[in-house]
Amino acid sequence: MQFAKPLPSYLVHRYQGWKATTYSENQSWYRRLASDGQHPRAMVISCCDSRVHVTSIFGADQGEFFIHRNIANLVPPYEPDGDHHGTSATIEYAVTALKVAHLMVLGHSQCGGVQGCIDMCKGHAPELEAKESFVGRWMDILRPKYDLVADIEDAQQQARALERQSVLASLSNLMSFPFVKDAVDKGELTLHGLWTDIGEGGLEYYDPKLEKFLPV
Amino acid sequence: MQFAKPLPSYLVHRYQGWKATTYSENQSWYRRLASDGQHPRAMVISCCDSRVHVTSIFGADQGEFFIHRNIANLVPPYEPDGDHHGTSATIEYAVTALKVAHLMVLGHSQCGGVQGCIDMCKGHAPELEAKESFVGRWMDILRPKYDLVADIEDAQQQARALERQSVLASLSNLMSFPFVKDAVDKGELTLHGLWTDIGEGGLEYYDPKLEKFLPV
Amino acid sequence: MQFAKPLPSYLVHRYQGWKATTYSENQSWYRRLASDGQHPRAMVISCCDSRVHVTSIFGADQGEFFIHRNIANLVPPYEPDGDHHGTSATIEYAVTALKVAHLMVLGHSQCGGVQGCIDMCKGHAPELEAKESFVGRWMDILRPKYDLVADIEDAQQQARALERQSVLASLSNLMSFPFVKDAVDKGELTLHGLWTDIGEGGLEYYDPKLEKFLPV
Amino acid sequence: MQFAKPLPSYLVHRYQGWKATTYSENQSWYRRLASDGQHPRAMVISCCDSRVHVTSIFGADQGEFFIHRNIANLVPPYEPDGDHHGTSATIEYAVTALKVAHLMVLGHSQCGGVQGCIDMCKGHAPELEAKESFVGRWMDILRPKYDLVADIEDAQQQARALERQSVLASLSNLMSFPFVKDAVDKGELTLHGLWTDIGEGGLEYYDPKLEKFLPV
Repeated sequence: MQFAKPLPSYLVHRYQGWKATTYSENQSWYRRLASDGQHPRAMVISCCDSRVHVTSIFGADQGEFFIHRNIANLVPPYEPDGDHHGTSATIEYAVTALKVAHLMVLGHSQCGGVQGCIDMCKGHAPELEAKESFVGRWMDILRPKYDLVADIEDAQQQARALERQSVLASLSNLMSFPFVKDAVDKGELTLHGLWTDIGEGGLEYYDPKLEKFLPV
Repeated sequence: MQFAKPLPSYLVHRYQGWKATTYSENQSWYRRLASDGQHPRAMVISCCDSRVHVTSIFGADQGEFFIHRNIANLVPPYEPDGDHHGTSATIEYAVTALKVAHLMVLGHSQCGGVQGCIDMCKGHAPELEAKESFVGRWMDILRPKYDLVADIEDAQQQARALERQSVLASLSNLMSFPFVKDAVDKGELTLHGLWTDIGEGGLEYYDPKLEKFLPV
Repeated sequence: MQFAKPLPSYLVHRYQGWKATTYSENQSWYRRLASDGQHPRAMVISCCDSRVHVTSIFGADQGEFFIHRNIANLVPPYEPDGDHHGTSATIEYAVTALKVAHLMVLGHSQCGGVQGCIDMCKGHAPELEAKESFVGRWMDILRPKYDLVADIEDAQQQARALERQSVLASLSNLMSFPFVKDAVDKGELTLHGLWTDIGEGGLEYYDPKLEKFLPV
Repeated sequence: MQFAKPLPSYLVHRYQGWKATTYSENQSWYRRLASDGQHPRAMVISCCDSRVHVTSIFGADQGEFFIHRNIANLVPPYEPDGDHHGTSATIEYAVTALKVAHLMVLGHSQCGGVQGCIDMCKGHAPELEAKESFVGRWMDILRPKYDLVADIEDAQQQARALERQSVLASLSNLMSFPFVKDAVDKGELTLHGLWTDIGEGGLEYYDPKLEKFLPV
C-alpha cells in the first residue's frame, strides 16, 4: 500500500476551513445525524460529471438526499445473478432499507458518457467496442435508445435528445426491479425524470401526460 | 412512463432560488464549463450516504471533482468480462479520458453498508446472503477483510475498523486495473485513502509509512 | 449571549433564494401588509408537529391566518390569575384585537403529545407524572378525556379517538373564555373543529348535528 | 358543542385543490412521515402574526421544522411549578424527545405584541395592566427589557429595538431551562436569534461577537 499518499496540502487547508466554519455552525446537526442515523427524503441518481451539483441546485444539506453517481446516470435492468451490481445495490438499499419517498434520475447537457455512446453507435469509437472497455460496456445499457435519435442531424440536438433518453431508459429499468415497482404501486415511492443544462442553469422534468421534458 | 411524476413544488421553489442567486453569480463560469468541457483535478469515490458531502468538506465547486458514489465506497477487482461494471467504468473514464491527477477513496463513520457486511459475516443477516440481494453481493467485495477485524469485541470499534478496511480494499483493487497501475507508476496519478467522522467532522488519511490512518 | 450562533449557511442560501423569487414577486403585497397591518380572516390553533402545515393545506398566503401552534393543539380553561398564559394570550389578541371571524382547532394523526397522554394515563410514562414535566402538566388539560377512549382496545384507534377529543376539549375550553362566548353569541366568531390524517392527506370536520367527525 | 360549525366552503375548495396537487405530488413522502415519525432538524419559535411565514422564507417543507408560534415569540423563564406552561412544554418536547439540533427564535417588524408592551410601559394602555389581560400578563415577560429602549425617541426605531430585545430575552430565558443549557453545553443544540422585516423581506441574525443584529 506504499502507493497511497497523504492528502495534498491545498485540500488539507480547505478542510480546515470547513471545520472552522461550516462544521462549527452545524456541529449539533452533524452529531445528531451520526447518533440518530440518516432519514433522507429522496434518492438521486446523477452523473459523476464534475459540473453537476445536485445538492446546490436544490439547496439540499447533509442528510437530505441519498446520492448515487455513475457514468450517464444509468440504471441497468434487474439482473439478480449473484454478481456485483453496484447501482442495483444502491437502489435496493435506498428503497428497501431507507424507504426513500422520491427517486429522481437527473441527466445533464454535455454528457461525455452519452457522447461516447453516440460515437460508438456511429462506428466512430472502435475502442469502446472492445470487450475490455468498461465505459463501452456500461453505455450498452443506453445503446438500444440510439435508434430513437439516429435521424437527428444536428449533432448537439442529437446529444441533448439521447441525454434525455438516458433518463427515460433509467426510469424504465427502475420499474423492472420488483421492489421498486411494488413501492411505486403502493404509493410509497415516486419516480421523477429530470435534465439540467449546465451552461444555462436550466432544469426540465419529464411530463408523463405530454410525454416530453418541460422546463420547471 | 405514466408512473413518472413532476417535481415536488418545494424543490421547484428551491431550484428557482438557486437559479436567481448562485447560478446568477456564477453564470460565466458555468457557461465556460459547458463550452470548454470539464477538467477535474481529482476523482472521489465515496458512499451514497446522505450525510457525506465531499464537496462541502473540501470547499469544492462545480468543475473540481469527478465523483462516483456507491454503497460503502467500494471498488470491485478488475474484471473485463464484458458485463456492465458501473464503478469500473467511472474509474476508466476518469483515469484514461479525463486524466485526473488524484483519486481519493473516502470512507465514513456509521456506514450502513459496512454494518450490513458485519451482520452478514456474523450470521445475523441471512437475507443478505440470498443470491438476489444486491447489497449482499456488493458487500462480498469487502467480505474477505472481515477476518482482520473479527476479533474486535467493541461493536463500534469493529465497525470503524472495517470502514477503514473498505478504503484499503478499494485502494488495493484500484491497483488491479492496468490503466490505474500504469498511471500511478508513471507518476501521473496519485491515490489517497481517507475516512471521515460524520458527527465530529474529523478527517483521517492513510499513511503508507506508518500503515495506519492518521488525523489530517 | 455568546452561545447564540449565526444562521447555518444552507439556510442563508435558501433565504436568499426566497428573497430573489417569492419575495420579489410579492413585494407590493408584503409592503402593504407592513404599512396597513394584518387583517387575518381566521385564527388557527394547531400542533407544533413538523408534519402539519396548515397554510399549505388551505392554500393560505401571508396575511390570511393568525396561527398559534402548541403541543397537541390544546386550549387550557379560562384562568385569569395573573400568570403567563401564552395560549390564552393568543386567543385574546385574535378575538378582541384582530376580531377574526373564524377560529379553527386542527388536530392530526400520529400526534406525539396525545400518545404521551395515553402512555401517562395507562401508567406507562412515570416521567410525565413528575411535577417538573412541562409536557406532562400540559397534557393534563386533555387527561379528563381519556376516560372516553379508555375502552378502545386497538392502540391506533384509541390514539385517533383521543386526537379528536383533544380538538373537542379545546373547543369546550374556548367557550369558557367570556370574550369568545360573547363573540360567538353575537355571530361575530365561528368555531370549527378539524382533524387531518398526515399520511393520507385526509381532512375531517366536527359535525355538531351528528356529533362526530366527518370527511370534508 | 352545537356552536361548532362545518368548514367554510372556500376552505373546502382550497383543501380539495391541495389534495389534488400538492398532496398527490408528495403522497409517498407524507406516508413515510406518518409511518416513520418526524425527525425535524430545527425548532422555530416565531410570532402568531399572519404575516410571518417561516417555512416559506427558508424553503422548508413538511417534516423539516418543529414550530411553536405565540405572541411576540416569547419564552418565559423556567418555572416548573406544576401549572400548564404551553411554551415550556414545546421546548421540552423538541429538545428532549425530538433532539432538534437548532433552535431559532424569529422576531419580526410591526409586531403588535411588542407595540402593546411599549404602550403598556408608557402608561398608554391601562387595559393591558389588568390582572385579567392575558396579553398584558404575557408581555410582562418582555417588560424588563423596556428600560433598554426607553430613551429611543423615534417611535418606529423604538419598536424595532424592542422587537430585537424580545428575541434576546427569549434566548436568555431558554438558557434557564436545565435541559436546554445541558444540550447547548454538550454541543448537541445550537441557539440562533433572528429578526425579519415584513415589508422589505430582510433577515437579520444576532452576532454574538459584535453583540448586535446583522443582515444575513
